[in-house]
Amino acid sequence: MRLRNKPWADEKLNEFSHYVIANPEEQKGKWQAVFGNDNPLYIEVGTGKGRFITEMAKAHPNVNFIGIEVYKSVIVAALDRVIEADIPNLKLLSVDAADLLKFFAKGEVDRVYLNFSDPWPKTRHAKRRLTYKTFLSIYEDILPQNGEIHFKTDNQGLFESSLKSISEYGMLLSYVSLDLHHSDFEGNIMTEYEEKFSNLGSRIYRMEAQFR
Amino acid sequence: MRLRNKPWADEKLNEFSHYVIANPEEQKGKWQAVFGNDNPLYIEVGTGKGRFITEMAKAHPNVNFIGIEVYKSVIVAALDRVIEADIPNLKLLSVDAADLLKFFAKGEVDRVYLNFSDPWPKTRHAKRRLTYKTFLSIYEDILPQNGEIHFKTDNQGLFESSLKSISEYGMLLSYVSLDLHHSDFEGNIMTEYEEKFSNLGSRIYRMEAQFR
Ligand SMILES: C[S@@+](CC[C@H](N)C(=O)[O-])C[C@H]1O[C@@H](n2cnc3c(N)ncnc32)[C@H](O)[C@@H]1O
Ligand SMILES: C[S@@+](CC[C@H](N)C(=O)[O-])C[C@H]1O[C@@H](n2cnc3c(N)ncnc32)[C@H](O)[C@@H]1O
Repeated sequence: MRLRNKPWADEKLNEFSHYVIANPEEQKGKWQAVFGNDNPLYIEVGTGKGRFITEMAKAHPNVNFIGIEVYKSVIVAALDRVIEADIPNLKLLSVDAADLLKFFAKGEVDRVYLNFSDPWPKTRHAKRRLTYKTFLSIYEDILPQNGEIHFKTDNQGLFESSLKSISEYGMLLSYVSLDLHHSDFEGNIMTEYEEKFSNLGSRIYRMEAQFR
Repeated sequence: MRLRNKPWADEKLNEFSHYVIANPEEQKGKWQAVFGNDNPLYIEVGTGKGRFITEMAKAHPNVNFIGIEVYKSVIVAALDRVIEADIPNLKLLSVDAADLLKFFAKGEVDRVYLNFSDPWPKTRHAKRRLTYKTFLSIYEDILPQNGEIHFKTDNQGLFESSLKSISEYGMLLSYVSLDLHHSDFEGNIMTEYEEKFSNLGSRIYRMEAQFR
């Protein structure tokens, strides 16, 4: 998904800095002011090309959304969607999930979405998985008491290791589906990866886990 | 699986009371004496026709095993296996899992196996599932500190509700496979139901959960 050598990406992100926030450190603790309201804030970590977060923002106008994607060359695709849809309750950030504490104050985020995160199947890369304990600890910091992460993936190994990771962390598994597309879950919004892998016949796994 | 009208079942169980313990209340706290050693004790709740527990007992001669099956008409089939194999480290009990506290002292059991437990898919029957919190509390009582339950099933709904149930109970999910037969788990011993359902193409789910 990462495309290299996109010199125009920077330029484009600068041009649309009302969508892709340029100095997000400065907004730490002030996101309600950025959105101009005090609605809840849901973020997606690893937004990719932005279909999920855009559709979510359209479907839930009373929630503020921020899509977070580390690669500028990828987030420009999300930006194209955002420009076209012109949705007031959606912003993008081109930052690394490992740095979230720089951009969000304690309890400032009301929900974290993780969709089809990179699986990092090798044990020696386990620390890079976005459900590894160091990331859980970051989410816990920016979420309120009993805050939730909502996670879906087609990757069996990542889902298994995530189930163990949230359990080890002491989180409550409040929802789980081992076959989302054949479950009674309502209002599912597909991501790019979700459509691709379910078309290839993969099962989609989904969980909600709560800090406690 | 339950067969009715087997008047000879009682008779047969009585005849083989060194295998199918007749007055298990009297052995509470004394199972090491029954086996004549101080090896660990693993029990299977809902043993059915006894293939798993028999094979396990053969494979692990330094562990004592007790297979527990509520229906006498079913446990006679397990008894036939046990008679044939004549395994010193295996006993059977024809009792209800709800009554385990009558038969085992605190910490007397070292591991609890649940295999292909009845799924009870309707929400109003959730309390009957052998991973419901009231059963977990019974297992916790007869297990030592950090005792474990090992559970497998082909039933997706039961596995999902069990994942939530052990999480709600505060247990640690120390192992999980969402496709046991295509995993690197070694030494799996198939149960009757496992063979039947995997032959029909079903995935087998497996977890280990630890009290903490
Ligand atoms: C497999 S893609 C999935 C994209 C999208 N969520 C979907 O479901 O279609 C994972 C995305 O997460 C991004 N990502 C990975 N690690 C990240 C990190 N530490 N911080 C922010 N984004 C990250 C990757 O660049 C990639 O675009
Ligand atoms: C679906 S069968 C599975 C049998 C075997 N474990 C296997 O995998 O082939 C479930 C078994 O659990 C037994 N069972 C159900 N509830 C029980 C309870 N409360 N106490 C003891 N056994 C029970 C049933 O009688 C049945 O034989």
